[in-house]
Amino acid sequence: MTPQYVIAVDWGTSHLRAYLCKVNEDLTLSYQECLTARGVSKVSHGFEQELFDCIEPWVEQFGNLSILMSGQIGSSIGWKETTYLACPISPKAVAASCLRFNCREHQLAIVPGLHCSHENNYRDVMRGEELQVLGWLAQNPKHTLGRHLVCLPGTHTKWVLVEDGQVVLFKTAMTGELYDLLIHHSVLIQHPNDEFNQQAFNDGAKYTLASELGSLIHGIFSVRSKQLFNELSTEQAPSYLSGMLIGSDVRAALNATEWQFTQLDSVNIIGSNTLSKRFSEVLSMQDISTQLYAVADVTLAGFSSIYQDLNITQRLKIKK
Amino acid sequence: MTPQYVIAVDWGTSHLRAYLCKVNEDLTLSYQECLTARGVSKVSHGFEQELFDCIEPWVEQFGNLSILMSGQIGSSIGWKETTYLACPISPKAVAASCLRFNCREHQLAIVPGLHCSHENNYRDVMRGEELQVLGWLAQNPKHTLGRHLVCLPGTHTKWVLVEDGQVVLFKTAMTGELYDLLIHHSVLIQHPNDEFNQQAFNDGAKYTLASELGSLIHGIFSVRSKQLFNELSTEQAPSYLSGMLIGSDVRAALNATEWQFTQLDSVNIIGSNTLSKRFSEVLSMQDISTQLYAVADVTLAGFSSIYQDLNITQRLKIKK
Repeated sequence: MTPQYVIAVDWGTSHLRAYLCKVNEDLTLSYQECLTARGVSKVSHGFEQELFDCIEPWVEQFGNLSILMSGQIGSSIGWKETTYLACPISPKAVAASCLRFNCREHQLAIVPGLHCSHENNYRDVMRGEELQVLGWLAQNPKHTLGRHLVCLPGTHTKWVLVEDGQVVLFKTAMTGELYDLLIHHSVLIQHPNDEFNQQAFNDGAKYTLASELGSLIHGIFSVRSKQLFNELSTEQAPSYLSGMLIGSDVRAALNATEWQFTQLDSVNIIGSNTLSKRFSEVLSMQDISTQLYAVADVTLAGFSSIYQDLNITQRLKIKK
Repeated sequence: MTPQYVIAVDWGTSHLRAYLCKVNEDLTLSYQECLTARGVSKVSHGFEQELFDCIEPWVEQFGNLSILMSGQIGSSIGWKETTYLACPISPKAVAASCLRFNCREHQLAIVPGLHCSHENNYRDVMRGEELQVLGWLAQNPKHTLGRHLVCLPGTHTKWVLVEDGQVVLFKTAMTGELYDLLIHHSVLIQHPNDEFNQQAFNDGAKYTLASELGSLIHGIFSVRSKQLFNELSTEQAPSYLSGMLIGSDVRAALNATEWQFTQLDSVNIIGSNTLSKRFSEVLSMQDISTQLYAVADVTLAGFSSIYQDLNITQRLKIKK
């Protein structure tokens, strides 16, 4: 018998976000409430304790609900390590490989990560973003036909190639982490600030989009030299740097050997409003139109997809 | 009358290195002794005090010696701000623009920095390295004829194009600073260490040398994924990252529009033994042979060059 409620937990490095979800008649989930707690790297007294302290109000009200989890909680520094599944892979195969276990008489499942191999003999990995890609696939039947690129900007940008409903391969760029390091620890930025300057951002993006081979490592010093010659204010510098890094990331995606933009049916961005808009703007400078999706919606759709694909007759039944 | 001794001070961001130099008959300088003190960013009680505390033994012994200074001491965060002189420029013009002043009855001179403009409308700057380039030019008459590239690896790599004895232009790459940030603050490296692994370094360098457009920002995540799949040990990871970054820096230099390697008379590296060797190895992977020069020798030659080019009859005479 279908339970009325499920708890979906997005448990990353920095944050835990638990969602109480209502199970609809078509087995999709709807958010009811959200509770937050510490991320994987910040938990000191055990993951079980952290989780059950967080969801205590719901347990008191509803009893032993099933719990779906995704993110770094399944990594080597998390609660239980799940494997990285090899691409190409279908959503059903991901669901079938969820790590299930029992805890305090709750049924739990952790979504595994993905890996893929590139031509130059190195493997790439993701953990957490796969849920959003599955959610995006589940949101619209059109997404499961043809060849699509899904860009997920964040600490690490993931560029994911999806074809006929399967995750084919993906590439990781450390754009967000590099931005953060350079903003806070480098000679480039004297006064970190969040005031976005559109013109400076555009200038930075155009610089790297139009530049020569490998020029990021050479060109990035212009963030400092432009300030020395008053061509860029200290307030504008972070926006210019953001443009340079996103421009470099987008240019690398445009030149990737793994896909051709001319052969894609769509280019999609899943992320925060701010970041998605920046990537969209830079792609539009190269005449690439994009469709933007909110992380929260796609994540919920991902949990719904996993929930539906778990063995229907034995949904979330425990492997003892 | 020529003084018998001069004090040459290399005063950078982190360190002050003062050299007591003997003035030879041909007006070249020879190191006698070295004293050290705090760098520009660490001086709390005034630059004058820091300097004279440091050189006190020499002042007691020799009286009011002339003092030549180079490096960040001439920057906006230094003692006296010197200009950035525009390239192309000759050594004599650099010497002529030294900022001279009097302090405690000593004659002082600070060597100015350089700037140049690139095609893509951004200006590059150097402060400190120009002294070493002048020293390299002064070391051998052959260096003042033809077209040469001088690479100065460090926190920021400088690639300097020298033609017929003039500094024509240069490019800055943040290779060393990026390495330092990624080693200490990123997800790529769990255990920073200094044990160099040649094979891992070569693999990293080959990766970026052979890679597609802009792939540094995409490829750098392989430092982590290779560790996840046991293709790289945590001990080897710093060497691999070093190879990737130097490979990217060298590749950008090879593809720079400002010079053609086939039209250069020589490629030279001025730096620490360790770093110079790494750059030399990566360049040799692309069949570029290099000549290596020790920083200490070239710096002394630079101070000698400046000293000789200061107005001969009024050497270090003060502008009041």
